[in-house]
Amino acid sequence: MLTSPTVPGAELAPDDGPRQNLGALLRHVHLSGPLSRAELAERMSLNRSTIMGLTTRLSAAGLVRERRPTAAGRSGRPSLVVTPAADRVYVLAFDVAVDRLVVARVALGGEILERRVAARSRSGPDLDAVVGVLAEFGRDLHRGAPADAICAGVGASYCGMIRPGDGMVRYGPYLGWVDQAFGAELGEQLGLGLPVAVGNEAHLGALAEHGRGAGVGVQNLIYLHGDVGVGGGIIVGGEVLDGEAGYGCEVGHMLVNPHDGRPCSCGARGCLEAEAGERALLSEAGRPDSLIGHDAVRAVVADAQRGDPAAQRAVARIGDWLGIGVANLINLFNPGVLIFGGMMRDVYLGAEPQIRSRIERNVLPVSRERVRLSAAALGDDTTLLGAAELAFAELLGNPLGVMAQAGT
Amino acid sequence: MLTSPTVPGAELAPDDGPRQNLGALLRHVHLSGPLSRAELAERMSLNRSTIMGLTTRLSAAGLVRERRPTAAGRSGRPSLVVTPAADRVYVLAFDVAVDRLVVARVALGGEILERRVAARSRSGPDLDAVVGVLAEFGRDLHRGAPADAICAGVGASYCGMIRPGDGMVRYGPYLGWVDQAFGAELGEQLGLGLPVAVGNEAHLGALAEHGRGAGVGVQNLIYLHGDVGVGGGIIVGGEVLDGEAGYGCEVGHMLVNPHDGRPCSCGARGCLEAEAGERALLSEAGRPDSLIGHDAVRAVVADAQRGDPAAQRAVARIGDWLGIGVANLINLFNPGVLIFGGMMRDVYLGAEPQIRSRIERNVLPVSRERVRLSAAALGDDTTLLGAAELAFAELLGNPLGVMAQAGT
Repeated sequence: MLTSPTVPGAELAPDDGPRQNLGALLRHVHLSGPLSRAELAERMSLNRSTIMGLTTRLSAAGLVRERRPTAAGRSGRPSLVVTPAADRVYVLAFDVAVDRLVVARVALGGEILERRVAARSRSGPDLDAVVGVLAEFGRDLHRGAPADAICAGVGASYCGMIRPGDGMVRYGPYLGWVDQAFGAELGEQLGLGLPVAVGNEAHLGALAEHGRGAGVGVQNLIYLHGDVGVGGGIIVGGEVLDGEAGYGCEVGHMLVNPHDGRPCSCGARGCLEAEAGERALLSEAGRPDSLIGHDAVRAVVADAQRGDPAAQRAVARIGDWLGIGVANLINLFNPGVLIFGGMMRDVYLGAEPQIRSRIERNVLPVSRERVRLSAAALGDDTTLLGAAELAFAELLGNPLGVMAQAGT
Repeated sequence: MLTSPTVPGAELAPDDGPRQNLGALLRHVHLSGPLSRAELAERMSLNRSTIMGLTTRLSAAGLVRERRPTAAGRSGRPSLVVTPAADRVYVLAFDVAVDRLVVARVALGGEILERRVAARSRSGPDLDAVVGVLAEFGRDLHRGAPADAICAGVGASYCGMIRPGDGMVRYGPYLGWVDQAFGAELGEQLGLGLPVAVGNEAHLGALAEHGRGAGVGVQNLIYLHGDVGVGGGIIVGGEVLDGEAGYGCEVGHMLVNPHDGRPCSCGARGCLEAEAGERALLSEAGRPDSLIGHDAVRAVVADAQRGDPAAQRAVARIGDWLGIGVANLINLFNPGVLIFGGMMRDVYLGAEPQIRSRIERNVLPVSRERVRLSAAALGDDTTLLGAAELAFAELLGNPLGVMAQAGT
């Protein structure tokens, strides 16, 4: 950052402004899609000549294209429209959920171009087996990309607690992983010479919904993700809450039922995940133990909506526990929106009255003045698209540097 | 911020670097006390000539003084020591707790120079009465300051939910205040021509412990404050968690006992404040209803330490509920330190084993690897010193501008 300062106060490196602006402009079109230079100038509080300087450099690097608007409505010279170069720049995104593995090629701009999906059993999936499948899918998608397309990064979402620096899975209860070098292994087996950025699935879901989903423009939001467990991704002042070592947002292990709580995967009892997760819902609804997974959850919610009393009781009860967790989070975070994703999306759609009732009872009126509840706008792709955002982060931080490194 | 940019990317105002550095340097000596230029150069990653430029300007404005070190241990030219001008620059700090009103003159550097304290009954203290006492104390302290001293700001801590922009008390359950224009009224009655910055007591306690207490150097910390209720101040990535509208950190209304919870001041039952606050402790210990306040709490903890069985049971039980709240917060925030202040300081000192036991049982091992527990280092002055920090904020953001306005 420092470039041998000799004048007092001249410590701002002269290149930081443009680089930050290049990244910010690219981020705007990456997240919002095509924008005219005039719109970019307004959004970024820069004048048009500055915008032109930035788009010219991004265009030369192959990151954006500029074209005349198709319908020039107003008089005067029309403002060129800036579009992300979706056919030339992509990332590989991996999503390791409890029940399935997904790998996708995601374009600059966020479109999922291609994907590979593998369902898998919950028992005994070890690191090698998981990484083997993912790496094969990843290499396959990479080979299938157009010859002139550039892979700008690799990101992975994992259903557990991740050490930020190196993608080590510290704790992944549903796969039984403790301290597994997932990111490093995947990077090596992919063999693309690119590091793999790994994040917790709910943190990444929050990032994706914040960038291009139900939380656009909201700087304080909570994303609740239901896989088998219940995860949280919380954005505070525009940034994901990582805490001291990257393990913040463990919403699922909030103790909500200290009296006679259900046993939890973590060894404790009465955690939010134990009371409001998949197992609790299916068990309350009287479903056989063999019936598990997202489809089974959806069936209970659908049965409740059709009037099945056991399913209705189950959804109401789980909704009440979830509502306690939600109320506590609103009191703590004063968020603008609370977003339900994964299996929590279905529970929310079925149990919204119970959740709202808990908010009424347990959230201070001042704290709930501004909060909205919302289903995840990105559906089942929240975590996958979050992994893609993680993969794009370096490019958006330093567009020309990353493209130069990628050999354009 | 923008100064008619014509060159692409030249939007950084040329004066921002120096102003930020002036404020940062002043903050260093304000929070850490006297520091040599060499130490400042290292802390701020600036070279010594830059530091000299900054200290010269701050010194000319009357904000710091420079002197030769008393013991020059090493050879070579000794590095001048920079000291905050504690005798020339101060703020007025107000602390409105449930049981007492405190007003202090606090020097640049954080020393409490003078204070006035009024105890008061809990019943019916209306806005006018409270502001009347505070304003009289404040004017008195202001009059008593040296003729050449400058009042750089006014800050107030209040035991309730505060709207950040204007110091409106949105909700102050223990004084029965709803939507009272506290900040504006106090500013008017003080008559110093200075605005009053108001903050929630626990938010400010967090700020003070972060700046000069048990949380120095920790960017993610939780401060729990016990007055009659239980408040929280949470610092995430170095900033107090405000949320969407300034009402974040409402730890006291986390529902911890959904089955047979005690009634809470907020109208709900089973909130952390109801189960682990002053009333619960005194009632569990069998103290008469007439006995209230911080001294009564201290007496129960002291009795427990002396072996009184009823007091021991009460402290253990309250400690367990507090431990549930603490465990939930550690799972959510992955903090570096959790600090207990006000009445919570006494409960923590008496019930540490119960709190640690809950952390063992209910916090994921990965999440508790780095967390420390600590009593507030600033004792009963956390919230008052937090109000002082709020009052100093503008000066530290723009040292020369504020001093110019103050007429030096």
